[in-house]
Parts: sequence; C-alpha cells; structure tokens
Amino acid sequence: MNKIEHIGIAVKNIDDSNELFTKLFGEPQYKTEAVESEGVKTSFFKVGNNKIELLEAIDQDSLIGKFINTKGEGIHHIAFDVDDIEAEVKRLKKEGFIVLNDIPKKGADNKLVVFLHPKTTNGVLIELCQDFF
Amino acid sequence: MNKIEHIGIAVKNIDDSNELFTKLFGEPQYKTEAVESEGVKTSFFKVGNNKIELLEAIDQDSLIGKFINTKGEGIHHIAFDVDDIEAEVKRLKKEGFIVLNDIPKKGADNKLVVFLHPKTTNGVLIELCQDFF
Repeated sequence: MNKIEHIGIAVKNIDDSNELFTKLFGEPQYKTEAVESEGVKTSFFKVGNNKIELLEAIDQDSLIGKFINTKGEGIHHIAFDVDDIEAEVKRLKKEGFIVLNDIPKKGADNKLVVFLHPKTTNGVLIELCQDFF
Repeated sequence: MNKIEHIGIAVKNIDDSNELFTKLFGEPQYKTEAVESEGVKTSFFKVGNNKIELLEAIDQDSLIGKFINTKGEGIHHIAFDVDDIEAEVKRLKKEGFIVLNDIPKKGADNKLVVFLHPKTTNGVLIELCQDFF
C-alpha cells in the first residue's frame, strides 16, 4: 500500500461541511461529484499528498444514509492507494480478511475500489483504491 | 496543513492488532511507545509518507478506555502535520473551532499535539501535530 489516499467523512449537509472544511484547511474543495450508484454526493479536499472525501447521502437508504442515521456524522472509512488492486485482494483474502466486493467497482475520483469488512479490521472500514483511466 | 500525519485507531489488545495490521500492510510496526500521561500504549505503522497509530488503553478511565467502552474499537482521530502549531491554533480559533488544549502537549512519536473538539468538526476528533526536537 502506497499511502493513505483519503479519509471518508460522512456529513449531513455537504454544503455546510464544505464551508467548515474550507475554514479548517484554508482552501476550498477541488472537486464535487455525485456517485449515483452509491447514493452519495462527494467533495474532495487536498491535504498535501492526501485527500479528505466528504460524503452526503442523496438516498437515506444508502450506506452513508444508514451510517448517519445510526452513528451520526464522523469518519466513515480509510482508503489506501494500491498499484494492483486485484493482487492486493488476493493477498488479503489469503491473510484472512473478508472482502466486501471481490470485483473492484468504480468509485468517486476515477478509482477502482474494494472494501474490507470492518469485522476483520478492528472495526475500521478499509477501502483499497487504484487509479482508473 | 502539510499532510495526514497519522490516523489513530483504538484497539482492545495492541498485540493482537499489531499482528492484524502487520498482515494488512505486509510489514510490522516500526515503533511501540507508552504515553503514561494519556494512559495508553501505542504502536506505529508506516504507509508511504503517512502513519497508522494503534492505541490501547492502559487505564480504563483514560480517553481511549472510555472510547472503547462506549463505541468499541475503531478510528479514534485524524492527525494533520503542521509547521507552526501555535499559529494554526490561533488561526483556527479565529475561524470558530474549539480547541481542547490551547497549550500544545507532548504526544507520542516526538510530537507536540493539540486537539480540536469534534463538536465543531463534523464529529471528527482532529489532532494537529508538529515535530518536537
């Protein structure tokens, strides 16, 4: 794994949170993007070589909608950048990690993504992501 | 802010979690350190230019002990690297963020640290940290 690609933070209102994180980092989001298949609106902030992704549910039945309804706003997942997502999935499954989607799917920000089940990662939802051209 | 310095993850048993994260990253922690003043044992993993900090409570009344007792294992905080922690505290207070400790305190891994109240940061406990020599 090359680095922390981003940290995903679930928020109730992405416009309000964009303002908040703009104050925090001293510069605005560089991108906003809806991912209809996941039922979310996202925005991205750069912090050096890392990113923060804000996620607002478009659909209350989406994973982010359910997360906010049960746990409230806060950190949702950590994403690690990998070069070869299929090789990493294979390696991690051998190590006993449970992979939520064996086949990488298209996420926000031009990435192929796979999630690991928090049950096998100390309660942390981990995303692996690889650039997708 | 220069980068995500580390993500702090609260764990019940740091020895078990060191094994788990060694499998995840394919290499072991590079450092373990007790921070008696905070009632925690910590270990650090490198992921590129970022780190993962595992935190186990030595003392059940410590912040990490209470966190695990109420929320279970999982992501506890995000730490951002800054060059001038005092200037950042001043700037962020002006922007309306609540700072938990105005005076930077000594944290693990040779850092001066300040925490922001999650109430003003979308439920995310944010640490600012500066190298301390």
